[in-house]
Amino acid sequence: MLTIHSRDHQYQNPKFELIDGQLRPPVENAQRVETVLSRIRSVGLGSVLPALERGLAPILRVHEQAFVDFLQNAWSEWVKVYGEREALPLIWPTRTLGYDRLPEAIDGQLGYYSFDAGTPITAGTWRAARASANVALTAQQLLAAGEQAVFALCRPPGHHAATNLYGGYCFLNNAAIAAQALLDGGATRVAILDVDYHHGNGTQEIFYHRRDVLFVSLHADPRVEYPYFLGYEDEKGAADGVGFNLNYPLPWGTDWQQYRQTLKIALDFIKNYHPDVLVVSLGVDTFEYDPISKFCLKTEDYLTLGKDIASIHKPTLFVMEGGYAVEDIGNNIVNVLSGFEDN
Amino acid sequence: MLTIHSRDHQYQNPKFELIDGQLRPPVENAQRVETVLSRIRSVGLGSVLPALERGLAPILRVHEQAFVDFLQNAWSEWVKVYGEREALPLIWPTRTLGYDRLPEAIDGQLGYYSFDAGTPITAGTWRAARASANVALTAQQLLAAGEQAVFALCRPPGHHAATNLYGGYCFLNNAAIAAQALLDGGATRVAILDVDYHHGNGTQEIFYHRRDVLFVSLHADPRVEYPYFLGYEDEKGAADGVGFNLNYPLPWGTDWQQYRQTLKIALDFIKNYHPDVLVVSLGVDTFEYDPISKFCLKTEDYLTLGKDIASIHKPTLFVMEGGYAVEDIGNNIVNVLSGFEDN
Ligand SMILES: [Zn+2]
Ligand SMILES: [Zn+2]
Repeated sequence: MLTIHSRDHQYQNPKFELIDGQLRPPVENAQRVETVLSRIRSVGLGSVLPALERGLAPILRVHEQAFVDFLQNAWSEWVKVYGEREALPLIWPTRTLGYDRLPEAIDGQLGYYSFDAGTPITAGTWRAARASANVALTAQQLLAAGEQAVFALCRPPGHHAATNLYGGYCFLNNAAIAAQALLDGGATRVAILDVDYHHGNGTQEIFYHRRDVLFVSLHADPRVEYPYFLGYEDEKGAADGVGFNLNYPLPWGTDWQQYRQTLKIALDFIKNYHPDVLVVSLGVDTFEYDPISKFCLKTEDYLTLGKDIASIHKPTLFVMEGGYAVEDIGNNIVNVLSGFEDN
Repeated sequence: MLTIHSRDHQYQNPKFELIDGQLRPPVENAQRVETVLSRIRSVGLGSVLPALERGLAPILRVHEQAFVDFLQNAWSEWVKVYGEREALPLIWPTRTLGYDRLPEAIDGQLGYYSFDAGTPITAGTWRAARASANVALTAQQLLAAGEQAVFALCRPPGHHAATNLYGGYCFLNNAAIAAQALLDGGATRVAILDVDYHHGNGTQEIFYHRRDVLFVSLHADPRVEYPYFLGYEDEKGAADGVGFNLNYPLPWGTDWQQYRQTLKIALDFIKNYHPDVLVVSLGVDTFEYDPISKFCLKTEDYLTLGKDIASIHKPTLFVMEGGYAVEDIGNNIVNVLSGFEDN
């Protein structure tokens, strides 16, 4: 299997993040990619190719222009006021505050365009986010050109980023951008299977009113887990999209046996949708030793996960999302990909 | 003029706050009250009386029961998961995230019930917030009993707190609770004049649909200043309340001369409303050396501010809100009160 990679992910390198009421070294860090790359090479998964520049057009098929402009300029606006320290929002237009106002001040704009306090914007954020989208888009082109499976080694991740909102370490929704590009390249139906521990609220929002993209997500129950406010089972899509959004919230402590039961139902549904292509939002924060998560998948389970995904026999684009057990993320990600190949 | 005070304000004593992307010692600190008290005593403004316990009933006239329950229990729920460090929310139900879900986990609930990342909940937050409401309510009782003017030395402040949202250092809306208690005690119309540097988004929201409380606010333009998403001039009230909400956003750099022009318009409007009582949300973060604000009022201007407020000749309840220049807050607050008395 080909892997697409860009060294520019390193430009997203905040010194801290706000988590559990503390400023701590980021769990979403550059080492995550290096561990995966090194494992890909040691098992000989296949060639690692650089991402190609695709410009803003395919990004703007998914994200709002004003939001993209904001991401591009946020750092320089912030630096003018606060100097070269990481940009964090302070206030959000939630509920009874009006959310139809875009403030002029950068602090207000950070709150307007974000939904959490744990996603710092740094000097290199835009460059890294752009590169990550290009990784997904290069993988998408190779798939469109006939590859049966490609791995987009994206960082920063994407599935929390919505049409005009960033958060959860995500700025541009790589999986959604690739799915849209697949449609624009001739596919009729694209299925997205999100196996990250967290609900992909951004991907859901982007395609919620549409039936040409099926979004299926297995994730920790939002009643007790981030992102808390989206990912419930009764969110089934709207307008033309009713029936094309499927959430499977699972309880803390879910192990592979429980997970796999739900996965089979999800894969059956995807199969019956007859997608031309499958995009997998591949997070391995379902791992038993993940530092911020509470599922119990083991390293060997990821081999079976890959095999199960392969069983529906579709061209498949794997897009990396979360997974924060830095020592193990390489083994876990590559097990999914190897399991898929060995099917 | 009588002053009402409670020592319990000291129980709100966070070690840090998130501001401008950094964790810093809080500007909203206990020393603020001590400086004001000491100035009140040195000029002989009048007696300082302790707050009396009024129970939850008058608080629940303004705030939602579930929100009050949350504030009461948030610390113990947080400590169970994270131990004894300050509770900060991480994610907010903004725009395309659903905001009709109340998550079960304390992290999700913190986000659900708040609108900013700069307002830590500590072990003593509820005790301090309760005491602050009792300070306002005791002042309200004295006013109802015939006092012409009373100063409620409230801390934590209140005007950012809405029906079921905390933020901006505010948990319970002391001014709104006092205004409602005045109505419940027999007043027909209450006017609230908010002269804090920041828009009183909470007070606005609480009375937005009503005409028995007139809310008039002078504040820094929300296009460039916290709270960014509310406080615009076109917010004039809704339903029965149309015409009973007046916002006067002013630019950075506003000095006393400019401020006073707008204040006179605001006071004229209040006079024509014929309120039985005036409640003043008294913040002095309009001060030229306030560390987080950008107006240019001088210490002597606050004397004239007090005189101007007195000119409408109404029983007046002063409720302390913001003001973060700790050295000067005593002079500035007491100048307003002395100016009022000397009228
Ligand atoms: Zn995740
Ligand atoms: Zn203020």
